[in-house]
Amino acid sequence: MKVVITGGAGFIGQRLARALLARGSLTGASGKPERIERIVLADVAQADLGDARVTSMAGDIADAAFVARMLEGEPASIFHLAAVVSGHAEADFDVGMRVNLDATRGLLEACRRFEKPPRFVFSSSVAVFGGKLPDPVPEDWPLYPQTSYGTQKAIGELLVNDFSRKGFVDGRALRLPTVSVRPGNPNRAASSFASGIIREPLAGVEAICPVPPEARMWLTSPNAVVENIIGAHELDASAFGHTRSLNLPGLCASVGEMAKALERVAGREVAARIKWQRDEHITKMVLGWPAALETKRAQAMGLRSDPDFETAIRIYMAERSL
Amino acid sequence: MKVVITGGAGFIGQRLARALLARGSLTGASGKPERIERIVLADVAQADLGDARVTSMAGDIADAAFVARMLEGEPASIFHLAAVVSGHAEADFDVGMRVNLDATRGLLEACRRFEKPPRFVFSSSVAVFGGKLPDPVPEDWPLYPQTSYGTQKAIGELLVNDFSRKGFVDGRALRLPTVSVRPGNPNRAASSFASGIIREPLAGVEAICPVPPEARMWLTSPNAVVENIIGAHELDASAFGHTRSLNLPGLCASVGEMAKALERVAGREVAARIKWQRDEHITKMVLGWPAALETKRAQAMGLRSDPDFETAIRIYMAERSL
Repeated sequence: MKVVITGGAGFIGQRLARALLARGSLTGASGKPERIERIVLADVAQADLGDARVTSMAGDIADAAFVARMLEGEPASIFHLAAVVSGHAEADFDVGMRVNLDATRGLLEACRRFEKPPRFVFSSSVAVFGGKLPDPVPEDWPLYPQTSYGTQKAIGELLVNDFSRKGFVDGRALRLPTVSVRPGNPNRAASSFASGIIREPLAGVEAICPVPPEARMWLTSPNAVVENIIGAHELDASAFGHTRSLNLPGLCASVGEMAKALERVAGREVAARIKWQRDEHITKMVLGWPAALETKRAQAMGLRSDPDFETAIRIYMAERSL
Repeated sequence: MKVVITGGAGFIGQRLARALLARGSLTGASGKPERIERIVLADVAQADLGDARVTSMAGDIADAAFVARMLEGEPASIFHLAAVVSGHAEADFDVGMRVNLDATRGLLEACRRFEKPPRFVFSSSVAVFGGKLPDPVPEDWPLYPQTSYGTQKAIGELLVNDFSRKGFVDGRALRLPTVSVRPGNPNRAASSFASGIIREPLAGVEAICPVPPEARMWLTSPNAVVENIIGAHELDASAFGHTRSLNLPGLCASVGEMAKALERVAGREVAARIKWQRDEHITKMVLGWPAALETKRAQAMGLRSDPDFETAIRIYMAERSL
């Protein structure tokens, strides 16, 4: 079988691809495990995973011709991770609409022409929630997104649900927690600091934390989220019941607790490299997202969360030293 | 001030236009009442209201050039009523997406270029709700639409909310109950029978009711819905609070009760012209919609419902004989 990952050159995309290569198989259209013959990583940039099964394609996923090339041979599974992140979509409304909405719809429309409806895993976000939220947010709660990113993801969820109901795709819309610790450079996600305040101090560099220590976040390690993305792909459609949208498991920690965890793992000197400089714009976006969600549905499906944030830091440190 | 009504040649559109002409003014961008100089009725067909203030424009509202002509002079108020109805959008997915989603977005995008953000009243629908629903549906309830029409309306609501949050328009997304009694011919709405079973028997013609008598519906008379659309337009944006989406007041009646009301008003012989022939496809769609909704928010805003369905029948009969 052929698998397509959009945003495939990104951190989660590459990690997902490596996990799939290690597994070697995925549930195919037959409902049985099938060998993964080919993985296409579609993104704005090339990626080289050093595996003959992997093809990298650079292009614009909002461009129908690129999408057509990417979907040649009608892949049985599509992981649609590509997105313009929260801060970027808020600053540039048109780019957010084009990538987060138009490209998602274009992909779904292209899949609709397949002979067999593919499994379509869509990365949504807790940013679909907003307004006055109970803590934790119950499984079934109305969506009042307070950012354009959250709005575009909520629209993506509605499309994935309706395309699934019509039998055009077999969709799953997963609401990802904030991923930490991400390696590499900061990005334009409002949540970018959630990795930065761990990553930079460990590299001997100061990191600015733009939100106050008491701000709580809903977090996942890269390991857990990749396992959960694959786990959600493997489930039978019937497991989803009344909606294809699903809160993925995560863990709740305040930014202050994250700093304390860093101190416990790496020492006081390292943690002191976090500089607290509140940014009102980022704080407003982050405080608008839920800090904790009920995830009974996902847990009943066998999806899981990290034990604690310290573990996430330790895994990052171990991988960094490889 | 200039006012644009999309779907302006339709029954509600024309009725809204007549009500606006009778009022003579609307709250303008200044927040104060302004005289209505011109009303544009945009629709697929022409309409003639016999009033010099009214211009009729026939065209395709999913066509940017038509939208640009329609919005010339930057109207202060836009009532976006045009839609492909539920049964039609379910049967023809592409047409539904084009008119209900693309045209709504295109209009919002065009309004975003205005010097002053216009008031933008979007006609949404109770079809945004679906799945297992409490009875009545609370004010804040998640949207699991079970039709493509409901999905497209839910997406329209998200867009109206985000465009309002960004200050591009001053939007209001109103969830209209099923309008009964509509004059004229049946249409492709799954709810078309809700007018047909009253209208046709009164005209001496048999009417098929495709849903069982115990099926309950959320109804509004044309009078009440037009008053509520204008009322929602007139409110200050601050009245909407956490969301621009609003359940409009309605009344709940079973189809059997509607038939009984017809019998009380027009006699046994007339009501006997309703023929009960269950259609599974229509019954499934109609039973998927909420039969009753909490509308405390709308009531606190001064919006109102009809006293009972008999009144709606009597008004229809009185108007028909004019």
